[in-house]
Amino acid sequence: MNYRMILRILSYILLIEAGLMLPGFGISLYYHESMAVHGFIRALIIILIVSLIFWLAGRNAKGTFQAREGLVTTGMTWILMSALGALPFWFSREIPSYIDAMFEMASGFTTTGSSILTSVEAMSKGLLFWRSFSHWIGGMGVLVFLLAIVPLGGKNQGFTLHILRAESPGPSVGKMTPRMKKTATILYAIYVGLTVLDFLFLVAGKMSVFDAACTAFGTAGTGGFGVRNDSLASYSPYLQNVTTVFMFLFSVNFSIYYLILLKKFKEAFGDEEFRLFWGMVFICIGLIFWNVRSLYATTEETLRHSAFTVATVISTSGFATTDFDLWPSFAKTILLFLMMVGACAGSTGGGMKQIRLLLLFKGLRRNIHKSLHPSEVNVVRVNGRPIDLSVLHTTHTYLIAYVFILVISVLIVSLDGFSFETNFSAVMATFNNIGPGFDAVGATCNFSGFSNLSKLVLTADMLAGRLEIYPMLILLSKSTWQNAR
Amino acid sequence: MNYRMILRILSYILLIEAGLMLPGFGISLYYHESMAVHGFIRALIIILIVSLIFWLAGRNAKGTFQAREGLVTTGMTWILMSALGALPFWFSREIPSYIDAMFEMASGFTTTGSSILTSVEAMSKGLLFWRSFSHWIGGMGVLVFLLAIVPLGGKNQGFTLHILRAESPGPSVGKMTPRMKKTATILYAIYVGLTVLDFLFLVAGKMSVFDAACTAFGTAGTGGFGVRNDSLASYSPYLQNVTTVFMFLFSVNFSIYYLILLKKFKEAFGDEEFRLFWGMVFICIGLIFWNVRSLYATTEETLRHSAFTVATVISTSGFATTDFDLWPSFAKTILLFLMMVGACAGSTGGGMKQIRLLLLFKGLRRNIHKSLHPSEVNVVRVNGRPIDLSVLHTTHTYLIAYVFILVISVLIVSLDGFSFETNFSAVMATFNNIGPGFDAVGATCNFSGFSNLSKLVLTADMLAGRLEIYPMLILLSKSTWQNAR
Repeated sequence: MNYRMILRILSYILLIEAGLMLPGFGISLYYHESMAVHGFIRALIIILIVSLIFWLAGRNAKGTFQAREGLVTTGMTWILMSALGALPFWFSREIPSYIDAMFEMASGFTTTGSSILTSVEAMSKGLLFWRSFSHWIGGMGVLVFLLAIVPLGGKNQGFTLHILRAESPGPSVGKMTPRMKKTATILYAIYVGLTVLDFLFLVAGKMSVFDAACTAFGTAGTGGFGVRNDSLASYSPYLQNVTTVFMFLFSVNFSIYYLILLKKFKEAFGDEEFRLFWGMVFICIGLIFWNVRSLYATTEETLRHSAFTVATVISTSGFATTDFDLWPSFAKTILLFLMMVGACAGSTGGGMKQIRLLLLFKGLRRNIHKSLHPSEVNVVRVNGRPIDLSVLHTTHTYLIAYVFILVISVLIVSLDGFSFETNFSAVMATFNNIGPGFDAVGATCNFSGFSNLSKLVLTADMLAGRLEIYPMLILLSKSTWQNAR
Repeated sequence: MNYRMILRILSYILLIEAGLMLPGFGISLYYHESMAVHGFIRALIIILIVSLIFWLAGRNAKGTFQAREGLVTTGMTWILMSALGALPFWFSREIPSYIDAMFEMASGFTTTGSSILTSVEAMSKGLLFWRSFSHWIGGMGVLVFLLAIVPLGGKNQGFTLHILRAESPGPSVGKMTPRMKKTATILYAIYVGLTVLDFLFLVAGKMSVFDAACTAFGTAGTGGFGVRNDSLASYSPYLQNVTTVFMFLFSVNFSIYYLILLKKFKEAFGDEEFRLFWGMVFICIGLIFWNVRSLYATTEETLRHSAFTVATVISTSGFATTDFDLWPSFAKTILLFLMMVGACAGSTGGGMKQIRLLLLFKGLRRNIHKSLHPSEVNVVRVNGRPIDLSVLHTTHTYLIAYVFILVISVLIVSLDGFSFETNFSAVMATFNNIGPGFDAVGATCNFSGFSNLSKLVLTADMLAGRLEIYPMLILLSKSTWQNAR
């Protein structure tokens, strides 16, 4: 394991994090929030010191950078970012417990949106901004961002490749081309462009600039931190509908937009994952609309809440316009299912990803067919292209690891004695980077009631979910730490 | 698809079922239970007529018998057995709804033990016997039984092989030898021997002969139908402990007993699945003992209920000595986990099977290792022997199908509006052939509150669980019915 190289990259990452803290710091200065200013300053000093230590330790980095280094770097980056990004909350005493602050920050970076705050509105503006901004940072992927701005030189192509694989959502990242950097730039342009568009639509609907910025960050990263205690419930129907639309837009594989920009409409709209996603969206909105129709006064209201909630769950955002914890169990079970599946690969959304569901289903159908007709050759195809068996096996491994982590997490969290619905949905909501769950962690509640042990487990789940399990599992593997040199 | 051959086999199967009904019928005659006698007679007539029709239709069966025929035969056998075995309950009006009767019978044959009866004690003795006896029949596998008693001739070796594969629990059935029939006979001898031993131990503890027979059938098949409304709660601690021990004994792969009979102790006790099973048993008893210690007066009582409940769940029996629905959520979550895993392959127990957990875990570890050291060759071994990749892939497919069925079932059942805990545990309890779940289907409750749609889904889950999914999926596959000739 090339530790020096890893440390050097981590030192850059922390510098970037310090830079990204500055807007929030500035807002605190502007509003004279003395405790928050104090918290930011102490945090910035510590982050810069840690960055310096890492830089000194990694000064003479040499040698190769392979898959395992990529995975370890990615895992360490996200843990460190969360651990140090939590400091302003803790030092300012706005979140008195460090474990709570780390939970909140990991929830931000992983674009989960689960909160331990009992009152969001009691927070200072600067910290509230940093909290929502972390969604936006997490949505674009910190390491990929590093690749896009820092020239690491030709001999580090291996690094670039392995990091991209480890941090990008979904199994779709295939062969990397030298034009990768150009592609990354275009995808970022789309990300920024859509965020700005969302912001403008919100401001046009008379949302305050601060609220609109925070909401746009939360929507773009599919995070879900709100700036009001009732999330988006007290905003106008227009603002809710705008958010619904943008949550859907941010759940779609960004390469679809790229295809649309290239005017390859047939390829874009014919994409199987894209079609599965929209099919699922419309069916689930329809089923939920039918199931909750007696709870709301008008058809408009029923449809608005149904669409918003499907959007917030399938995009793994976690905003709320209504307390969907009060919905009938059929609607809630659909939501749990959507939580598990999540958004499309290559979007900012979390969950298992639509493409994996497609691959699992097609693989299953193939195996059933094979057991009936053992001699026939049977290839799984997506968008007409044959899928390599190794991709199917990796997807299977993913599902196994997913189920293992789910079971173990629910077991540990259940030690706190909450209801099964609370425990199961809390793990689902954090592991799939949604935000709120049901019952004691429902849309109107928060995660503050859990023990520290549970909070740590749920924090680990958020990180494992965002990084799609592997980098976190690698960190737990004995052999990662055995070959130290 | 060789339909004639399938029909001929089904005709034999129904003859056997009619024969197996006779003891219950005799008991009803003995106790002068006129309605039950009436029900049995009408049911027997119908079963014999259907058998005759199938025999006539399948008279000129010719041709080969392959994997798909084996799977279809197995699926059809279990559906037919349940559908027709339910008739005495329905005709006697002891279960007024046919769907309920079929649910109860499928629950019997699949050794699930979930019941729609609100009062077991109100049933006639003859039907109560038939109900418990069905566990014993289901435990040994009807088709394998057919193979052991009916000489089908050398040219039907293919048939024998495919049926055994489809009906035997667990992925362990490897290459079939010509000594298969001998092996089957020895395994049956062990099954019958252990059942008799259980019966004698129960009678020695002053249980009535009728109760002891029914309880022994339920224990041997790991079914769990009781003859009292409170299951085993009102029996003496001795009788409860005897049942605990035998539930464990019937959860172990029967080939272990065979090895012990052959004095191959090292091989028997060194078996990895065997070790995993007992390790899990002791750890879970310990954790539950610690978690529920404040609920019972004495240590003896706490230990007895903890051990009994772990036994009843890991063996997938479903008896109860205490209302474990009142236990804290940690204990209940452990039980849900044990429900999913279930017993060892090659036992009468259900669930996903210990060996599959082992394979999934080892496969996962291998893949993590592989991603760190891509060039190393890495083989998964169980008991020192390398496991073929195709076995791993089949296990993966099993997990995928398992999760799909679980999700879809919970979705449909949730339409009834019960709590998530009820819906999830009801599906877990039927799909893994346990019996009771939690909340509205807890140990002191029953499944009568569900709608007919949910009962049908849960019945299908029981059958899919007992046959380990594949034969049932095959029946749903379009291509099974396309190649009709």
